[in-house]
Formats: sequence, structure tokens, C-alpha cells
Amino acid sequence: MFPGPLGTSLAGRALARGDWSLEALNIREHGLGRHRTVDDTPAGGGAGMVMRADVLGSAIDAAAPAGDPRPRLLMSPRGTPLTQKRVRALAQGPGALILCGRFEGVDERVIEGRGLEEVSIGDYILSGGEMAALVLLDAVVRLLPGVMGNAQSGETESFEDGLLEHPHYTRPTEWEGRAIPPVLQSGDHGVVARWRRTEAERLTQQRRPDLWQNCGISLKD
Amino acid sequence: MFPGPLGTSLAGRALARGDWSLEALNIREHGLGRHRTVDDTPAGGGAGMVMRADVLGSAIDAAAPAGDPRPRLLMSPRGTPLTQKRVRALAQGPGALILCGRFEGVDERVIEGRGLEEVSIGDYILSGGEMAALVLLDAVVRLLPGVMGNAQSGETESFEDGLLEHPHYTRPTEWEGRAIPPVLQSGDHGVVARWRRTEAERLTQQRRPDLWQNCGISLKD
Repeated sequence: MFPGPLGTSLAGRALARGDWSLEALNIREHGLGRHRTVDDTPAGGGAGMVMRADVLGSAIDAAAPAGDPRPRLLMSPRGTPLTQKRVRALAQGPGALILCGRFEGVDERVIEGRGLEEVSIGDYILSGGEMAALVLLDAVVRLLPGVMGNAQSGETESFEDGLLEHPHYTRPTEWEGRAIPPVLQSGDHGVVARWRRTEAERLTQQRRPDLWQNCGISLKD
Repeated sequence: MFPGPLGTSLAGRALARGDWSLEALNIREHGLGRHRTVDDTPAGGGAGMVMRADVLGSAIDAAAPAGDPRPRLLMSPRGTPLTQKRVRALAQGPGALILCGRFEGVDERVIEGRGLEEVSIGDYILSGGEMAALVLLDAVVRLLPGVMGNAQSGETESFEDGLLEHPHYTRPTEWEGRAIPPVLQSGDHGVVARWRRTEAERLTQQRRPDLWQNCGISLKD
């Protein structure tokens, strides 16, 4: 599961170079009894299993003793939605401890008792937190110094300025009767930049009025 | 990269049983020339590379000829945000063709010309569409008949009723001075259900006023 898809491509080469590192810990090592139990039935009844506070507490304490400056994240659909802003902050920070639950869920008391920050990658349900952790890691790792090189810009992409990205075109000039917009072939960088900005604003207004509103707020800030 | 983390746990066992299947296709097989080129510099200039419409068009036509009923999804941060509702619709549908771009992006003309539906898993940038596709697949696969079994409920989770999920507790009854709320130990199923509903509403109002608003709308519908 880890590093999984992070072991390939740019992130994988950066991992091999030591530009970033990852340690996967198995919660079951802190499980109870002969079967290394990590979960139990929900108090109050109902379907699924809940991960125990005592087991998770021990696992967290072993991975990040008191005083460890890294934020402790719990991947959870109840969490604060992940944004590019949070991704940038994590990329500039000291790293992170990421706790991956298997849903039904995690005992609420360990969230409180260990100060876990619940982070959601989106409004849908996954079979566990691992896939969400991979997404968060991929988003963060690509922003670390040295990882992307010149392969990608990291600057002019969707959300970096609060807008969705403008449309892209490349050769051939015409494909199936569809032409590249003439403005992109004008050679006038100012005109191209204005067209892209206008398209980005148009797309954001049209597809994501929620973002467009926040974009207005952040431009004013 | 594929099936990657989907090859483990419940989804992996379901894959082995044939409850679902996945075919990974390499776009480079449709690349041009001796180097199997799939991308080119952006029209109008700028950083990064853009995936060519002609190459992607050929790859899509080979994977899903005209008349194939499956939706054609393009994982993209410009897309419609993925929701649990869309996940459920995909799980009940005939499958999907998922195109994973490596950002900077994909030539706009192939999005139009092949009717691609842009889907975003969240407001952050990944190094490519593959990780987003894994997330979408995990969310869909767990809803397919036979995959979850009795291990998870799939019914009372976050978003299934437009609300974040209520807090969970399990044994021990007390941990580090923190007790399970007495109501959950009352044995009164009605009282427990009402407490959970109230907690779910409280969490949703507090953490996600955006969802709470939409929840109101969908309850009225």
C-alpha cells in the first residue's frame, strides 16, 4: 500500500534520491492479545467496527512522542476539506504523522486525546484512509524542493491563484476540424496571458461558483 | 500503479474473485514516432507539457469504440467535484473509461471531441490523474455487490444521508479519564439513534455549513 503509486514517476525518483522519506507503521503491532486486535464493536450498537482508542493511542505515542512538532493528521470524511493552501503549508512544514483508519471509524476519544487533525480529501467514502493518505502525500511531495524539477511548473496551475486552470492546446494546429484558438498563435505574450486569465475566470465562474466567491474574497484579502 | 492499493484488502479480494475487473492501458502505445511521444509544448508558450489530442483520441477510440455505453471520465482538478451520489451512480452503471492525464494538462479539443466528463476528487493538485483514478475506483468498488460483505455497512456513513458521521466509541468504557457517553450504554436503541442523528447534524453544521445547506435542500426535495 505504501509507498505504492508514490514509488513511481517523479515522486518515486525523489524518494530514491532521499528528497523525501516515508515510514509505514502497522497499527496491528500495538494490537491487543494473541490476535493483535485493533477494533471492537460500536458502543450503542450498529454495523461495522470501531478502532480502539487505547490501541491507536499507543501506536501514535510510539510514532510521534510528545514534543514531536509534526502535525498529526487523521484521514476522515468528517475532516476539514484538503485545499492546495493546506498542501503548501504541509510541504513547507516539518513533515506529518498520518493516521489511516479503516471506516466505520475511530474512537472519538483518541482524536481528542492526541489532538488529531481530521482531514478529508473529498465528499465521498473510501474503504480506508490509506488511499486518502496517498493522495495527500502525492500533492505534498510534488511541491518539495527538487521533486518536480522543470517537468511541471507548480505555479500556474488550478487553485494556485484560486482559479481553475485555463484550457490547454498543443500541436497539431488542427485536429478533426478543431483548430487551436488563433490568439494562442499570435506570439503576443501579453495577449496570451490575458486570454488565459479570462478563460480561467470564465471556467471558474461557470463550473465552480463556490470557488469563484472565495477567489473574490482572497483577492480582496 | 494499477491496481496498486486496490489489489489489497476487500477490493483486492473482490478483484481476485472477479467481482470487478480493471484493464490498465498505456497511452504511450498510441504515441507518435520512434519515441512514442504523447505530449508537446503548450500553444501560446508556458511551462509544462500538454497531452496531444490526436494521441489521446486514438487511445480512447481503441479502449472504448463509438457506442460503448460507459462514461468517459477525465480526472482533472477542473472537473465536477466527485460526490458520493456520483460514486453510487457509477457503481450502478456499466463501468467507466478513466483517462488519467499527467498535468500540465490535456489538449482541450479531445475533451470536446470525445465527450470527456471532467471529474475532480478535490481542490488540490496531484502529480497525475492516476492517484485520483485510484480514489474514484476505491469509492466505487466498495459499493459493488459482494465486495464489502458484512464488514462495513455502506448505509449509515458520512454523506449517505448528506450529513457527516456521528462520533464513534468502543471499548474500553474509560480511557485516559475519558468515558463513553452514557447514552450509548443505555441500551435504548431509539435514544441512541436520536443522539447519533443530533451529533451528526451538529458536526455538519459546525464543520461544513456548505453541506448543511445542501442537506436542507435535499431533505426538501
